[in-house]
Amino acid sequence: MLSSHLPWAGRDVRGTGVFFFPNARLTRCPPRLPRGAGAVSLYLAPSLPQAPPSGGLYNARLIPACACKPAHTSLPASVLGSCSSLRMASSGLQTKKDDSHNGHFVQPTNPNVAAMQEDVLYHFHLSTSTHDLPAMFGDVKFVCIGGSPTRMEAFIKDMAKELGLDHPGAEYPNICVGTDRYVMFKVGPVLSLSHGIGIPSTSIMLHELIKLLYHARCSDVTVIRIGTSGGIGLEPGSVVITRQAMDPSFKPVFEQMVLGKRVVHRVHLDEQLAQELMQCGAELGEFPTVLGDTMCTSDFYEGQGRLDGALCSYSEKDKQEYLWAAHAAGIRNIEMECSVLAFMCGACGLQVAVVCVTLLNRLEGDQVNSPHEVLAEYQQRPQRLVSYFIKKRLAAAGHP
Amino acid sequence: MLSSHLPWAGRDVRGTGVFFFPNARLTRCPPRLPRGAGAVSLYLAPSLPQAPPSGGLYNARLIPACACKPAHTSLPASVLGSCSSLRMASSGLQTKKDDSHNGHFVQPTNPNVAAMQEDVLYHFHLSTSTHDLPAMFGDVKFVCIGGSPTRMEAFIKDMAKELGLDHPGAEYPNICVGTDRYVMFKVGPVLSLSHGIGIPSTSIMLHELIKLLYHARCSDVTVIRIGTSGGIGLEPGSVVITRQAMDPSFKPVFEQMVLGKRVVHRVHLDEQLAQELMQCGAELGEFPTVLGDTMCTSDFYEGQGRLDGALCSYSEKDKQEYLWAAHAAGIRNIEMECSVLAFMCGACGLQVAVVCVTLLNRLEGDQVNSPHEVLAEYQQRPQRLVSYFIKKRLAAAGHP
Repeated sequence: MLSSHLPWAGRDVRGTGVFFFPNARLTRCPPRLPRGAGAVSLYLAPSLPQAPPSGGLYNARLIPACACKPAHTSLPASVLGSCSSLRMASSGLQTKKDDSHNGHFVQPTNPNVAAMQEDVLYHFHLSTSTHDLPAMFGDVKFVCIGGSPTRMEAFIKDMAKELGLDHPGAEYPNICVGTDRYVMFKVGPVLSLSHGIGIPSTSIMLHELIKLLYHARCSDVTVIRIGTSGGIGLEPGSVVITRQAMDPSFKPVFEQMVLGKRVVHRVHLDEQLAQELMQCGAELGEFPTVLGDTMCTSDFYEGQGRLDGALCSYSEKDKQEYLWAAHAAGIRNIEMECSVLAFMCGACGLQVAVVCVTLLNRLEGDQVNSPHEVLAEYQQRPQRLVSYFIKKRLAAAGHP
Repeated sequence: MLSSHLPWAGRDVRGTGVFFFPNARLTRCPPRLPRGAGAVSLYLAPSLPQAPPSGGLYNARLIPACACKPAHTSLPASVLGSCSSLRMASSGLQTKKDDSHNGHFVQPTNPNVAAMQEDVLYHFHLSTSTHDLPAMFGDVKFVCIGGSPTRMEAFIKDMAKELGLDHPGAEYPNICVGTDRYVMFKVGPVLSLSHGIGIPSTSIMLHELIKLLYHARCSDVTVIRIGTSGGIGLEPGSVVITRQAMDPSFKPVFEQMVLGKRVVHRVHLDEQLAQELMQCGAELGEFPTVLGDTMCTSDFYEGQGRLDGALCSYSEKDKQEYLWAAHAAGIRNIEMECSVLAFMCGACGLQVAVVCVTLLNRLEGDQVNSPHEVLAEYQQRPQRLVSYFIKKRLAAAGHP
């Protein structure tokens, strides 16, 4: 085993040994780690939030034997030869054996995370030093997210009933009760979580969710957004399973500003998962379900071509041309979060899908003015579809 | 009066007459309207959500005499000469005389708004057909906004006490109780309202707030964001009054995508208002208050140069260089909403300021890990300052 070649170097972070290689010259390892008993995966950590004990610039993370399939390590000899001056200390929280890890681990692409003494998930009001995240979240397999806190609470209650985990007087407390930024609920392997409106709000939630799932040593996690949207050329109440997340110029990209510079990422959603969800929609047969591209915008009014905002700098004709061009490009609905979801989940080893109901047909109007009870029923549709999907997946995996 | 030259053309929308000029060829009027008794302001309305009764392409809005100072209209003769075929009908809700209108009206730049039969403010769960907005909001002079719903509720309770409008058993119900997207509270001339996290969430709130204030015929409204931020080179707990809202490359601009095309707007905040708030901070003398530029980002982690997100594509050195460059450019704090606020409020005739406390010094770290009670006290500082400012303004205007 590789570890026998190395004195211990870093800290044991709840069962993951963290090593520092002061003089190593590493390149980033593939996201899918070599998993041996005590296998070491190495990441380029050009900097650390706090100086590591050895003062080195690079770190490695030991995958605990209990969570790994036997396999040979594949570390380059040039790396192994440069490791030196290593020691190890234990953290306060103890490693727990966990048989649930049998596939792809959730893995931040940021190597600094593994080296942090404490990780405060500020917007969740959770922390690695105050909460036993593996015990709280280690069994999570499905994360369902949506903009509205109320909807996500309703979803977990429905999910509990569907999974037979509900009982009279059962309560589903908000895990993020210490903050009002997001709400989070859990029942069995299902986490339900709000993300607010728009990419920035969703991005914060995803950064902290991915780190939470990593700290909890979760594997094989599927994230599904269950949301609302404006449809293009669809009957209101239709449910769109997103094939591709498109930007406002109909490209499958996510753009962000990093240190003041524009960075553009190609994004993609899981095709097989989308097909699986389409099959669920067909089996349910309760409402129209279509596979289509989804446009992600950073504004509900001008950004989506509405004529009824406080500002509007174009004509009805301009709007219609834009929406018809979107339709011709394969876009069937518009919302405000899918591209960041596709980018971040894809980068960190999470299967991801987007399932949104359309509240109106944007080719026919802008205002969401259907009766409250009609909109309320529409909003339940993605939840019913995803609930059906989760039950089906669990049944296929041998769960009752 | 101009109206004597014209047969009525449109609909009376709660005291504002809407006219249609089928053959007019107008250019947009200046944002500050000519205000005569029965003065007409004209807008270019290249398209309307619904075909107007006269089938025309252009509309004008009559400022009711009760809300106007006597003045001559300044309509170009070429416009007046083209008006024809006009008629008028009354709406269900009646115009109420209101002496509070003595200055600048809130005015959407979108001319379509004046012509809408009904305006559903979907994310507030309010509508012009179901709520008497002038009666509910006509006296609003200050709108205080912040990300956190809980904080905005606490603010209105404090404001009620400060204004002597509190009494035992008083309740401050959430006006947006029909939705969980935003919360809204009101006491006297002060509206308190949450905007969630980030530009998209804030943009939706602002579109609907501006239309609400317009429908309510509000004038001389000041909007102040009371928020949290990361400081650059400041002692945590410092309060920054924003001089300029900067983008991530240190330019005073707001960028948006409109119909798939990138549009960049120059933004500015009210300098005199910022100085007035600085003076209030000095008079209070309870905490450090500084005037500085504020950077607005669309991401809390990579977008602000943090090293502790799930993704991080740069080094500690890169981060430090970026933050020091921001400091050198005059930026003293970073948050996620100020640029859209400066742009939209500026465009629609609202005075606007941004007052944010810094929760940490980003030159020294990334994690927000001060004790809860310390952070809670920090978050009250912008509220105390703005509460003092409002009392001072009201006293200067002769209110008790």
